[in-house]
Amino acid sequence: MNKEELLKEYQRYQSMNLNINMSRGKPNKHQLDLSLGLLDVINSSSSFINENGIDIRNYGELTGIDECKKLFSKMTGINKENILIYGNSSLNIMYDFISRSMTHGVNGNTPWCKLDKIKWLCPVPGYDRHFAITEYFGIEMINIPMNEDGPDMDLIEEYVKDPSVKGIWCVPIYSNPTGITYSDEVVRRFASLKPSAKDFRIYWDEAYIVHHLYNGHIDSLLNIFTEAKKEHNEDIVYVFSSTSKITFAGSGVASVATSNNNINFIKNQLKCQTLGYDKINQLRHAYFLSDLESHMKKIADILRKKFEVVDSVFNKELSGIVNWSKPHGGYFISLYVPGKAKEVIERCKKCGVTLTDSGCAYPYHIDKDNSHIRIAPSYLEVDELRLASEIIALSVKIEL
Amino acid sequence: MNKEELLKEYQRYQSMNLNINMSRGKPNKHQLDLSLGLLDVINSSSSFINENGIDIRNYGELTGIDECKKLFSKMTGINKENILIYGNSSLNIMYDFISRSMTHGVNGNTPWCKLDKIKWLCPVPGYDRHFAITEYFGIEMINIPMNEDGPDMDLIEEYVKDPSVKGIWCVPIYSNPTGITYSDEVVRRFASLKPSAKDFRIYWDEAYIVHHLYNGHIDSLLNIFTEAKKEHNEDIVYVFSSTSKITFAGSGVASVATSNNNINFIKNQLKCQTLGYDKINQLRHAYFLSDLESHMKKIADILRKKFEVVDSVFNKELSGIVNWSKPHGGYFISLYVPGKAKEVIERCKKCGVTLTDSGCAYPYHIDKDNSHIRIAPSYLEVDELRLASEIIALSVKIEL
Repeated sequence: MNKEELLKEYQRYQSMNLNINMSRGKPNKHQLDLSLGLLDVINSSSSFINENGIDIRNYGELTGIDECKKLFSKMTGINKENILIYGNSSLNIMYDFISRSMTHGVNGNTPWCKLDKIKWLCPVPGYDRHFAITEYFGIEMINIPMNEDGPDMDLIEEYVKDPSVKGIWCVPIYSNPTGITYSDEVVRRFASLKPSAKDFRIYWDEAYIVHHLYNGHIDSLLNIFTEAKKEHNEDIVYVFSSTSKITFAGSGVASVATSNNNINFIKNQLKCQTLGYDKINQLRHAYFLSDLESHMKKIADILRKKFEVVDSVFNKELSGIVNWSKPHGGYFISLYVPGKAKEVIERCKKCGVTLTDSGCAYPYHIDKDNSHIRIAPSYLEVDELRLASEIIALSVKIEL
Repeated sequence: MNKEELLKEYQRYQSMNLNINMSRGKPNKHQLDLSLGLLDVINSSSSFINENGIDIRNYGELTGIDECKKLFSKMTGINKENILIYGNSSLNIMYDFISRSMTHGVNGNTPWCKLDKIKWLCPVPGYDRHFAITEYFGIEMINIPMNEDGPDMDLIEEYVKDPSVKGIWCVPIYSNPTGITYSDEVVRRFASLKPSAKDFRIYWDEAYIVHHLYNGHIDSLLNIFTEAKKEHNEDIVYVFSSTSKITFAGSGVASVATSNNNINFIKNQLKCQTLGYDKINQLRHAYFLSDLESHMKKIADILRKKFEVVDSVFNKELSGIVNWSKPHGGYFISLYVPGKAKEVIERCKKCGVTLTDSGCAYPYHIDKDNSHIRIAPSYLEVDELRLASEIIALSVKIEL
């Protein structure tokens, strides 16, 4: 098709008066339906005494109940003794950790709010809500390019020589939004990182640790905590995870796993913050997810089809024109339209398809190549998703 | 009985090898049983679309769902538009508010961590966990004596002339631990307070707003928010409440109510912290507590007996010797043993009865009169409670 024909096609879509929002990685209704049983595993006839003899309806158990620690231990491969269970949001834990580092410092080091400058490493493209936290605290964010096997480790090893660099955001498996998984080599280099700042921490967000699409390959992630222990360096990493995209988004449980040393410091501070998190919901999740793998396969059956729809439309329309990711898990497809991302997103918008804003996956919303578009296939039904993908592909062809 | 006889009696109790913990205001098993229905009101067959058409299983609704806002609106008498719903702990909200004031300041004012000195007013005796938060943040706490109708307002009005005084802790109804309720006059003076610091806030913890004992008198608390609005002073107060002692401690929902101005600032900051709290639990509570008053009366039927047991033992043993409170609601009885509180608590401990540490109800754990003992009747069964009360009374008589 020539430009004129493309524009005619675009007008045809415009006349459909669509209103399709694919801006966020929200689970779809059918995924949520797979977790309805979660609401029945504990009811008024249940026993409320857990395996350690605790009445889960009452106050107490600041660090969470054992049943739930075991669930996260299975997910992360980290001992239950090194796990703390929180409320419904791992993002909230990360916020809380940075907030606490600002006001009280990390493990006895100077509170960051007393320092002139705090810097943070941000592999890009990355997760917008991570960057929003560091921006909110006035932390200077430094872009680190992502390779196929993880972030540029040479650059990271160089940057951590600066003592004002205090942390890094990582989504090490099925990365948000590129979908890549860090190689064993990259994980080992993280595990043996020796930053100049003693209070440097790796914020290792295993958001998609069990979120395989089962589409021909299952990525596996080396256990950073085990590797760090080999180097006597286990204080360097906080491993976050949650059930947000496993059961009900917003009504799940979240956890952090880290060294004994870190756990002790955190516990001591945590007791000023709360008397403990929702233990009933913790036990609910432990019961319901007793066969986590089969549950995740059912979710994958729904998600995989959606990733295939987007990929097949792009294959048909955009092959040889632009590149996009073909992940084996996670929630996103990254589409690269060098120099034209903003324009494509605006064109889609005018046709009733809302994508995440351009630059969303970069600190300060600046994608200097104006290239990256984050596609979230999960929430839409297949027909809408196909339509949206066609409009995206068409908009790319018009703008390029 | 003479001293020798008292000590003989004490030895008799000691030989029973008791292990009774009445140190914390935890709900009793029978109270918790009254909320079992909470676990059935939402199950796998429920509709998950709320009255505003929102699928409560998914992400979103940062400020909470309307059904739950209405519940807290009924509890606090404040419009639902002025209410934010959080997770399971109002203490956690208070922590979060102070933490945010440290790092970001209140409504655009200088972050407290950038100031040399922050001071806080603490009516005493008060709630230990309040004081733990301000101590944790290095805020200097100033004792304010409590009268029968609330804290000493003359002193408060004097102290707030100091711009480094940024807040006050209040439990205005059935106060922890004295059980008193602030008079209308005291509430009005709070509502019209004009502190020198623009970022001064009243932390108004309505922990026991519906926790009447129905023992002859129902205390009522003037609505501070309405009063403050009359004075165009509504930014001054944050009103906290929760269902922690209404349904399951630790698995409830918590809220804060405040001015539009404050709400807007908080919302803007909150969106960096989380995508929202547990909406399923919010709806569960809204459904289950549709007849809140009759639920609270059932709880009172359990609690009232326990308060009566303590009071009757003290009446029998301690009348004319020492004073104690006779509250109409809340969770605590305050016993005053001038100069001997620490000794009484230690003597009880040696007899197998654990009370809260002496000084617990004072900033920095310093009760300069060594007088106050906090009695928590709720958790124990009646027989144990009677025994414990007898041991306390006996210990008082021995020590005095």
